[in-house]
Formats: sequence, structure tokens, C-alpha cells
Amino acid sequence: MAERAAARLHLSGLCFFLQLLTIVLFATFVRYSPESSNLCSTEPRCSQRDPSPTLGYPRFRDAHLRALLGFGFLLAFLSRYGVGSVAGSLLIVAFTIQWAILAQGLFYFSQNSKIYVSTQSMVSADFCTAAILISTGAVLGRVNPIQMLLMALLEVPLFACNEYILRSILGVSDSGGSLTIHTFGAYFGLTVSRALHQPHEDKRKEQQDVGHGPDVFAVVGTICLWIFWPSFASATTAHDSAEPWAVLNLYFSLAASTLATFILSPILYEEGTLQVAQLQDATLASTAVMGMAGEMLSTPFGALTAGFLASQLSLLSSRFLSPILRSRLKTEDTCGVHNVHGLPGILGTFLGTLLAALATADVFGDRLQLVFPLVADGSRTTAEQAQWQLCGLVVTLLLAALGGGLTGALLRTKVLRSPPERNELESKALREVDEDGCDHGTSSEERRTIA
Amino acid sequence: MAERAAARLHLSGLCFFLQLLTIVLFATFVRYSPESSNLCSTEPRCSQRDPSPTLGYPRFRDAHLRALLGFGFLLAFLSRYGVGSVAGSLLIVAFTIQWAILAQGLFYFSQNSKIYVSTQSMVSADFCTAAILISTGAVLGRVNPIQMLLMALLEVPLFACNEYILRSILGVSDSGGSLTIHTFGAYFGLTVSRALHQPHEDKRKEQQDVGHGPDVFAVVGTICLWIFWPSFASATTAHDSAEPWAVLNLYFSLAASTLATFILSPILYEEGTLQVAQLQDATLASTAVMGMAGEMLSTPFGALTAGFLASQLSLLSSRFLSPILRSRLKTEDTCGVHNVHGLPGILGTFLGTLLAALATADVFGDRLQLVFPLVADGSRTTAEQAQWQLCGLVVTLLLAALGGGLTGALLRTKVLRSPPERNELESKALREVDEDGCDHGTSSEERRTIA
Amino acid sequence: MAERAAARLHLSGLCFFLQLLTIVLFATFVRYSPESSNLCSTEPRCSQRDPSPTLGYPRFRDAHLRALLGFGFLLAFLSRYGVGSVAGSLLIVAFTIQWAILAQGLFYFSQNSKIYVSTQSMVSADFCTAAILISTGAVLGRVNPIQMLLMALLEVPLFACNEYILRSILGVSDSGGSLTIHTFGAYFGLTVSRALHQPHEDKRKEQQDVGHGPDVFAVVGTICLWIFWPSFASATTAHDSAEPWAVLNLYFSLAASTLATFILSPILYEEGTLQVAQLQDATLASTAVMGMAGEMLSTPFGALTAGFLASQLSLLSSRFLSPILRSRLKTEDTCGVHNVHGLPGILGTFLGTLLAALATADVFGDRLQLVFPLVADGSRTTAEQAQWQLCGLVVTLLLAALGGGLTGALLRTKVLRSPPERNELESKALREVDEDGCDHGTSSEERRTIA
Repeated sequence: MAERAAARLHLSGLCFFLQLLTIVLFATFVRYSPESSNLCSTEPRCSQRDPSPTLGYPRFRDAHLRALLGFGFLLAFLSRYGVGSVAGSLLIVAFTIQWAILAQGLFYFSQNSKIYVSTQSMVSADFCTAAILISTGAVLGRVNPIQMLLMALLEVPLFACNEYILRSILGVSDSGGSLTIHTFGAYFGLTVSRALHQPHEDKRKEQQDVGHGPDVFAVVGTICLWIFWPSFASATTAHDSAEPWAVLNLYFSLAASTLATFILSPILYEEGTLQVAQLQDATLASTAVMGMAGEMLSTPFGALTAGFLASQLSLLSSRFLSPILRSRLKTEDTCGVHNVHGLPGILGTFLGTLLAALATADVFGDRLQLVFPLVADGSRTTAEQAQWQLCGLVVTLLLAALGGGLTGALLRTKVLRSPPERNELESKALREVDEDGCDHGTSSEERRTIA
Repeated sequence: MAERAAARLHLSGLCFFLQLLTIVLFATFVRYSPESSNLCSTEPRCSQRDPSPTLGYPRFRDAHLRALLGFGFLLAFLSRYGVGSVAGSLLIVAFTIQWAILAQGLFYFSQNSKIYVSTQSMVSADFCTAAILISTGAVLGRVNPIQMLLMALLEVPLFACNEYILRSILGVSDSGGSLTIHTFGAYFGLTVSRALHQPHEDKRKEQQDVGHGPDVFAVVGTICLWIFWPSFASATTAHDSAEPWAVLNLYFSLAASTLATFILSPILYEEGTLQVAQLQDATLASTAVMGMAGEMLSTPFGALTAGFLASQLSLLSSRFLSPILRSRLKTEDTCGVHNVHGLPGILGTFLGTLLAALATADVFGDRLQLVFPLVADGSRTTAEQAQWQLCGLVVTLLLAALGGGLTGALLRTKVLRSPPERNELESKALREVDEDGCDHGTSSEERRTIA
Repeated sequence: MAERAAARLHLSGLCFFLQLLTIVLFATFVRYSPESSNLCSTEPRCSQRDPSPTLGYPRFRDAHLRALLGFGFLLAFLSRYGVGSVAGSLLIVAFTIQWAILAQGLFYFSQNSKIYVSTQSMVSADFCTAAILISTGAVLGRVNPIQMLLMALLEVPLFACNEYILRSILGVSDSGGSLTIHTFGAYFGLTVSRALHQPHEDKRKEQQDVGHGPDVFAVVGTICLWIFWPSFASATTAHDSAEPWAVLNLYFSLAASTLATFILSPILYEEGTLQVAQLQDATLASTAVMGMAGEMLSTPFGALTAGFLASQLSLLSSRFLSPILRSRLKTEDTCGVHNVHGLPGILGTFLGTLLAALATADVFGDRLQLVFPLVADGSRTTAEQAQWQLCGLVVTLLLAALGGGLTGALLRTKVLRSPPERNELESKALREVDEDGCDHGTSSEERRTIA
């Protein structure tokens, strides 16, 4: 009891400190950009991204919706951590949004030592939140809220740094975040998970595989992904005239990946009962693969093929790669972010690289100016652009691996300092989930024992 | 086991073939319309429908949302097929969207033997998906996924054909789809269900009546219908200036039908406990009745009255007509699409016909040009327009009955070829639903047996 | 059985009468405003609020969405009345929307004895619906549907009257409804609840505290509040250029209040398990506090601080004030609307008053014209504006208390006339909830008894 009370006070103390810190930092640095009054700054970047007031807000809401809803349900996905994980993910979201405004502001918006925020910076903060939630998905159930907060505290600046390097320095075109969101988030989380590995955990993880998870969440989550990711992926598309391609491509790839899931899933899994969870994975995978290539694909069938491949890749890797990851590499992946975000993100990067190499002015027309500005103004050849896209992948993987390793090591020290509280907290979480009736996994087991 | 494995392989093989087919067809025929870059083609039709980039996309998303969410939950409605039906309906949606782009493209968008797709064609594809899902609702639980796919394969071209005849040849004004979506989908599904009738099925259907269904889905589904159908119904409204009427009328009719459900439901049903399911039915019925008349009604109280009548009609028919349908006509109607989509759709058509006959230039103003272009340019009298509206009903019913009969006969032969796999699959589905904790019907029964 | 049958007939009779009444009144008075065809009237007020067709509709949908979804789930929150309360709240929503159009029309839109409705009047009706649902939350589970309908019947005109006095007479700036929606709705409901107090009810209420409620609803409700309240709060913001502040401020306060909940909740509650319900309360509280101040705050850190304080206030009051309210003041508060809407609404009013007093032209710029038109055109000093804002609080509290007292007295007479039917109905509701598997509270208890 004493340790649990201590743990609770630690958490609430940390939250208090972080909230106070952000308030002070906001009071010192953050102001509303005078342009925010007409929703678009005069600097070219924003005016590019956000040409009309009427567009800015809905986009912001959708991106926001997707970040919360999609991932909230993605995390709520585990049986044992179902509802409990939503509280945790909301904690992470609430902190990350404030922290990302500050971290990204340092790179992007700083003028006369002030950070000017607008609807656009909110969208960027939501992108960051999405990456953090992906990383959380890899370690969920094996870290306590304090560790999740510290992980977010360290990952947000790294994300902003990586995004800045790719977008502003390397000039990589990655509007949907195949690299910045999916690949970075997945591999950061995986390296953290690797660093946190402890032998005695393997047995608990088996239990997790048993429960099927509250499929109500899976259903709602899948449908919400179908609906709102297109607008999320196109939230930062350079120009309206480019939006349809990103949206339609993503839409086609969603349809193809969903249909394709019914191809491989019955073959890979004995029971042959297709879990809605697999459909959600396929949906996420197709969005990850379309992140970079979404606005570059000029033909619908390309989107169909990409979605088809993404779902197959995700299914195969979850069937064959995950066990290896767990046994050999000692890396647990609670939500399977490697299959759903990591590999499809890399596949999407390769696809984007290919399309960048093949990009020609007559196919893209004035769209070239929007997707590859550096190519359009002749300062780069398409081949060079493709090289930079690949280079972005390398940078992302490096930053994710290094940052994740360090973060994991740090969290591990904290773990060693307080294992009891951690287990206490988790058992509390379990008990909570058991008490409210939402832990279907448990209830169904009990049903079986009864029947 | 052998049969089940065979069934699984059949399904995955069919999915593989269909996906490959659509990819090949897309590669051959489908291109992004050059106009799609600014979201609006120069051809009058699209520029009418889709005047501004900012509008096109949200509309598309809402229509899309409604098609998926509304019907996903409508199907998820049955207790026994709850979560399982979502996987099925997503399979249908994923395939129908691709297939509808092709089928409708043949009628609408073909220029120099290419199909040019834009956001607008996505909305049309979603309309088609809605109709297919309505038909699926009639046969749900009595067909296996393979049959559902084949049904969609055959129904989509028929839907596109019917839509083309009504819109382009007969010049019927049916923006919300009272005829093209609700009436066609319902009666197509019912004739298929009639053709699939087999004596030994009656007993299983009783079981279905027992369970109350996961009302969580009913609740979310109802609320989502309330919210998003208005934008769905007005997604193809000819012009912005006409949108408010369609939206507001639908909104008023929703309010009236929901309130009216509390009038008749306690009288018709002994228990007197109003199921949320009935509210969902009333919501759907009022949207079906507003499909055609939505943009023609010039007075709010007309919308209130229509919604009032629609919900009463749907309740009465589900109470008195469905049993007759089942016993006499040997037509099962798993989700009650006849009460919720069929009859209200016909009622909406009659209402639309009446309003078309009464349409006068001084009431409609320049709106007349948008709702009844042929009347506005004097090539038709309002009386003729009314006749054509009725004629559209006849055509729709004929096509639905003929196509449904043929499809049902075809599916039946397949059924006869493989009854075991079908039952196997269904029992699998049941078992799946039992295993994840979402089959509330079962769990509650078990609770009762326990308590 | 006889009483229950009588009760059912009473309800359906009342619904029939009310629906007929509204239809007749609509037929007599309500017309579509000729301007609604281009979605914006020529009168300055509307053209201010709704400058472009493209904006009007999404705003309307979001406000609408929020009113339904947020509160639908807020009410669905109680364990025992989970799904049952949704049917009740939909009944209230369906009636209130029609009734509010009439009641507000009398004050706002009446020209030549007609009420002209447009999308804008729909948003106003949704605001009214939100207030009614808040009041319902205070008495939920202790009134039968008939009493809920009568309460709405009486509250709607009072709400319209209060809104008219504040907006048009006192010139109070309260775009997000801290006063008109939250404070009025909460204290109206509380006085009704006080008037309905009966000794023998206390014991049942303990039972309610036991169940944790279907957290699925809490989760979905919380996330939906996060997403859609911003657009709801800014639905009537005077001008687009003012929208970002309202939206961004609300967004920041949401993040802060959610994070702050993790500070106090573990300290206040022994178990230390943070219920998602508390996060939903914090979300609602932060929206209530931002209602008036949302578009006045010119610095993000102000929004963070306000959200921080709101969640702390709501948590403290639910921990310490609610018991006093129940024991001393004999006022039950089923959904805790006093902690979530009442006090934060008042806090928001004070904040708004402070900001109005401090408002200066150089900070607000041309925004001053939109937020404080009377100050901008020099007919008021900021100090006077602040006084009027406070005065609005007094008026709202007076109207809410008086109206609530009278309504409660009236309902009480009805209660006395028919206690049996009430209990019958409630027990019916309970049984319904037990039968479909959604009453997690009960099921979990049973599980415990089993395990």
C-alpha cells in the first residue's frame, strides 16, 4: 500500500511539475501569431499549406480527430489494457500536444524569441502526437504512466528535430508522414521496448496473446481510420489542387488493403476467423504506405497495388517476423507497431523514392511545384530528389534507434529504482479494467470456465 | 475441417481474383481526371455539383462516413452476427467501392475509352455501396462471404444501370436516393432473400429474434445517422444554394420521426420498453423518405409530417407486415430493410412525385433550375416531371426484382453446391463472436443461466 | 401491469399531442428564410456570424454533432441507466429541437408574424438542446420520460428568454455559452432536482455510486468532446477571423485540464485508479470555463491556466461539495452537472468578466469590434462591459432558480399523481438494460459473485 501511494504521488507530482513547466514556458514564449486572426501567416510556408481560412479549420479538426480517435482506439485495443490504456493515451496526448507546440516552435516558428502558434502549428502538434502514440503502442503494458510521460518528454524534441531535418534541411517530401510519423514512431518505440526487455516479462506477454481484445473498439477504430485518415494524411498537403490525389490514393489503397486482408489472413491463421483487429492493422498499414507516396501517385491502380502489398506485408510480418523479434531480438511489440507502422512506413518510403525518381513535369504539371518544389525550380534533378528521400529514411532510422536506445536506458534505470510500484500500478490497472465490465477478454475466459 | 479449409481457400482465392481483376481494369481504364487537380471538371455536370474545392472534399468524407459508419453499425446490429457482420460489411464495402468506380465509370465518365475519377465519382461509389449494404442487410446471416461478394459483383452494375436510366434518361430528380439507394437496395435484397429461401432455415431465424443485439452499436449507429446523413443526402445536391433545404428538411424529419417512434412503439409492443433499435429504424426511415423530397420541400412542417408518417409506417410494417412476409411470402428480412428502406423509400417517391406536380416557379425561384432543370427550361411541364418520377419507381422496382431474382437463383446454385462449408463458416462466425466478448446476447443468456 | 400500460399510453399520448402541436405551429408560423437559399440573410447579425455558405454547414453539423454525441454519451454514462438513458435523451433532443425553433423564433426571427429558419437557427436550437440535456443530467433516473418531456417543455422558453436578455438586451458576449448553456442548464436542473427530493430515494442513489458505468461510453464520449466541442464553442463566433482564438484556446484548455486531472485525482480518491469518467468531467469542465472567455483570451498560457483551474475545481467539488449538496441541501445531482457545468461555468464567467475589464483596443485590434461591439463603437467602456457580463450571471442564476423551482413543483405534483408507474417504468428500464449485455456494472458484479 505504501509503495502504491508513493507511486500515485509520484505520478501526480510529475504531472503537476510538467503542467506548471509548460504554463511557464507558454507564458514566456508562446503567443498567437497575429496572422492567426485570418488563419494564415504571410510567410510562404504557411500560406502554401493553408491557403484559405475555410480549409484550415476542418483540416485541423480531422487531423486532430484522427490522432485522438484512431490511436485512442488503437491503444484501447489490447484486451487487458483496454479501457485503462485510453486514460494513459489521453494523458500522453494532453501532455504531448503542449510539449510539441514548444519543441516544434523552437525549430519552426521562432521570431524575436517568441513562438507564434496558429491552427497550422496545432496540426503539426497532432502529427507529433501520432508518432508518440505509435511508440507508446510498442511498450504499452510494460511501462507505468510515469515512464510513458518521460518517454514522451524525450521523444517529442527528437521528433521535432527529425521532422525539421527532413523537411527543412534535406527537403524530403513526406506530407503524410511515412517517415516522420510511422517509421520514426515505430522504431523509436521498438528500441525502447528492446532496452526495457526483462526475462520475467515473457510469461505475462503470453497472457496478452490470449485475450482477443474488446472488438467494439476495433470496429469503431477501423471505421474511424477509414473515414478520417484521408484528411489527416492530406492535412499538410502543399496545395488544395494536390489534395484530391492524396485523398483518393489513400482511399483506394484502403479499399485494396482491406480486401487483400481477406486473401492472406485465412491462409496464415488456422482458425480462419478473420479478426476485426486484422482489418484495423491493414487499414493502418495502407495509411502508412500512402503517407509519402499519397500525393505522388498519378494513377489509381498504383494506389490499389500499394495498399494490396502493404496489407500482405503487414500480415506476413505479424505472422512470421513478430515471433522472431520476440524470441531472438528480445523485443516485445505489444500492439504490433512494427508490422503496422514500421515496415509499411519503410515500404512507403521506397515507393515514394521510386515515384520521385520517375517524376516528370508532364505528368505532374504544376503539381510538381507543390510536391517537389526543389525539382520544379531546377535546383535538383528527380534522381537527386530520390536520393534525398532515401537519405531521409536513413536519418530517421538512426535518430529513432539512438534516441530510443537512450530513452530506454533511462527508463530502465527508473524501472530498477521502482519495480514494486510499477507492478502495483499495473495490477491496479488490471483490477480497474476487470471491475468495469469492459474487459471482454477476461469475461469471455470466465465464460468459458463457466460453460 | 477439410470443408472449412476448402471454404477458407475459396474465399481467399475469390478475393485474390477480384482484387487482381480490379487492379488490371484500373490500370487499363481508370485515370485521375485532369480536372481533379482543382477538384472540379469543366463539364457542366461536375461544375454544377461541385462548385468549390472547399466543398467537394468534406461532402465526400461525410457521404463516405455515412456509408461506412451508418451501415456498418446497422449490420453490426444483429446480436449473433454483431462483430462478425462488421468484417463482412467491410469486405463488401472494400470491394464495392472499387467495383462501383468501374461500373459507374462505364456509364458516366468514359471519354476516349478512359474512366476519369474525381472526388465526385467517389461520392457516387459510396452511394452505390450504401445500396449494396442495404441488400446485404436482407440476406445477412443466411449467406456466406463468398455469396455476399458474388451478390455485390452482380448488383453493382445493375445499380449503376438503374441510376443511369433514372438520372440521365428519365431525368428523375432523386438527389438523396429514395429510389436509387433505398428502394432499389431493399427490393433487390428481398428478392434475393426470397430466392434463397429454404425451409430448414426458419428455426435458426427464431433464435435471432431472441437476442437484443449489442445496443452499444445501435446507440452509436443512431447518433451517427442523426449527424451525418444530412450531409450524405445533400452530397449530390445540384447546387449549394439548394443545400440548406435538403439538410434542414432532413433534420426536421429526423426529429419528428424520432419523437413519433415514442408514440406507436409502446402501443405495438407489449413490453413497452423502447429498444434503441427502433429509434435507429425510425432514423433510417425518415432519411429514406427524405431522399427524393428533401430538396423539394419548401416548408418545414412538410418535413415534420413526412418524418412522422415514415416512422409510423416503418413501425407498423415491422409489426404486421414482416410476419406475413416471412410466413406467406417465404421471404426473410434479417435486418428489416423492407420496413426501414423499402416502404419509406416508396413513400418518399410518392411524396416527391406530389411535390414535383405542385412545383411552381414562384415558390422555387431559381431553385427550380437546380431541382427540375427540364421543367425550368420548359422542355417539360411539372405534370410530366411528376409522371417521370413515378415512372422511375416502376423501373427501379422492375430492375430490382429481376436482378434480385436472377442473382438469388445463381447464389442458390452455389449454395446447393456447398452447404457444409456455408454452415461451417457461419458456425465459425458464431464461435468467433462468442469468443471475443462482444456477443452480449449470448453472454446475457449465460448470465441468466448462471443467476 | 395496468399502471404500466397506463403509463405507456400516457407517454405515447403526450408525444402524439406534442408532435401534433409542433406540426400545427410550424405550419402556421415557420417558413424557410428566403435568404437561407444562399445560407446567409441580409440582416447584419447573420451576415456577421455566417459570412460564407461553405462555413455555415460544417459549423452546424459540428454543433449538432456535439450536442447529440457528447451529451448522449454523457447521459449514457450512468451504469444503471446506460443505454436506457440514450433513448430518453434522444426523445428530449427530438422534441427540444422542434420546440426551440419555435421558442427562439419568437424572440429572434419573427418578421411579419413568420419565423424564418436557416442553418443558423438550427445551431441556436442545438445550443438550447445542450442546456436542456445538462438539466436532464441532474435529475436523470429520478424522473420518468413524461416528466422529462414536461421539463423540456417548460425549460426551452426560459432558455430562449434568458438567451435573449443576455445577448440582445444586456449585450453580454457569451459565444460559447458559459452562462446561457452551462450555468443556466446546471442550476435549472439542480433546482428541479431539489424540488423533486424524496427521502426514500437516498438509498437507491447509493446503488448508483456502486456501478462504474459503461466506460465504453465514457471513452467515446470523452474523445468526441475533445474533437468536436471546439467547433461547437465557436459555432456562433462573430467572425471567422475570431474563430482561431476560440478554437485554439479551448484546445489548450482541454489539454491542460486533462493533464491536471492526473494531478488531483490520485490524491483525492483512495483507489488511485483514474476513471475515464473523471477525464470526461475534466473535459466538460474545461469547455464550460472556455465558453465565455474562449474568444477573449489573447494568450495561450491563459487558456492553459484556465483549463488547469477548471479541472481542479471540478474534481474538488465532486469530492467535497457533492456530498454536502446531497446531505445538507437534499439536492441530488445524478450526473454531477454542478461540478462539471455549474461551477466551471461560473468560473468561466468571472474569467470572461476579468478579460472584458482588461480588454484594450491594441491587444484585440479589429477583433474588438467582433467580441465587444458595444465597446468598439464607444457606447460602453470596458468596465461597463465587465459589469454587464457579471449582471448576466445574476440574471441567469435568478431565471434558472425560479424556473427550476416552479418546474420542479409542477413535476412533483405529477410524481405524486403517479408514483407506481414511475417505478414500474424505471424497473422496466433496468430490466431492459440487464437483458441486453450493455450493463457492465451489473455484469461485473455478477462476475464477482461467480469468481
